Amino acid sequence: MEDIRYHPIGVIHSPNRQDDHVPPRPIHSKDVEGTVEVFPEYADGLQDLDGFSHLVLLCHLHLSNGHALVVKPPSDTATHGVFATRSPRRPNPISMTVVRLTAVEGNLLRVIDVDLVDGTPVLDIKPYFPATRDDEEIRTGWIARRGE
Amino acid sequence: MEDIRYHPIGVIHSPNRQDDHVPPRPIHSKDVEGTVEVFPEYADGLQDLDGFSHLVLLCHLHLSNGHALVVKPPSDTATHGVFATRSPRRPNPISMTVVRLTAVEGNLLRVIDVDLVDGTPVLDIKPYFPATRDDEEIRTGWIARRGE
Repeated sequence: MEDIRYHPIGVIHSPNRQDDHVPPRPIHSKDVEGTVEVFPEYADGLQDLDGFSHLVLLCHLHLSNGHALVVKPPSDTATHGVFATRSPRRPNPISMTVVRLTAVEGNLLRVIDVDLVDGTPVLDIKPYFPATRDDEEIRTGWIARRGE
Repeated sequence: MEDIRYHPIGVIHSPNRQDDHVPPRPIHSKDVEGTVEVFPEYADGLQDLDGFSHLVLLCHLHLSNGHALVVKPPSDTATHGVFATRSPRRPNPISMTVVRLTAVEGNLLRVIDVDLVDGTPVLDIKPYFPATRDDEEIRTGWIARRGE
């Protein structure tokens, strides 16, 4: 299949610096404040976003340097297939992050719970919508669920 | 910022054909069965995926032909910014879908709840992990939540 080409729609501003240890688990990014700068040419796409309390950010993990198919996550001592993990060393290094939206100021989105490095390119923004899966059993494999 | 280049890791096989109306809301894809064919060179990345009941698929919406910043979703009569919707007419047409995983057979994943068109390129597979946000109020803007 052919290569796919995307162009960033914005960039993350956050206190997480390139050389810092960026928390691998969302629980560690709780309350970290950041800004999504949406490039002005895409700002019209933000209409009505302020009605949502949470957003999904799809970002390009630009610091990921090559991929591995089997990885050892920091939270475990065993190896796992990369698609069974959140490792950035994915064939296509796209991250998926849920953040809280506190304000929309023109083309700037003020957000909380940011686990992304400052300067990360943003590919897409989606409204966060809690999955209604109360009727289904959720199994999370090797990943322990919070509180268990 | 520079263009970003990805290469598909697999392809969707589903009963949703290119010319069909593909359901815009996940509730309509309930129980639709499909297969994710992961290309053999990436199959080692599937180790331990079978422990998860649900997966997130990030796909390239290859039929999306150009983007719009303001769209009118089929579920509404008003227009909204594209980033406040699930419209495929996004600047970077990446879809995010939660599916149920029923079996892993070599490089084939049997999945249920597929709203993707047959032939859709797959960019990434992630374990689905229910967000623990019981302590936070979720607002979903113009999108009505199921059962409301």
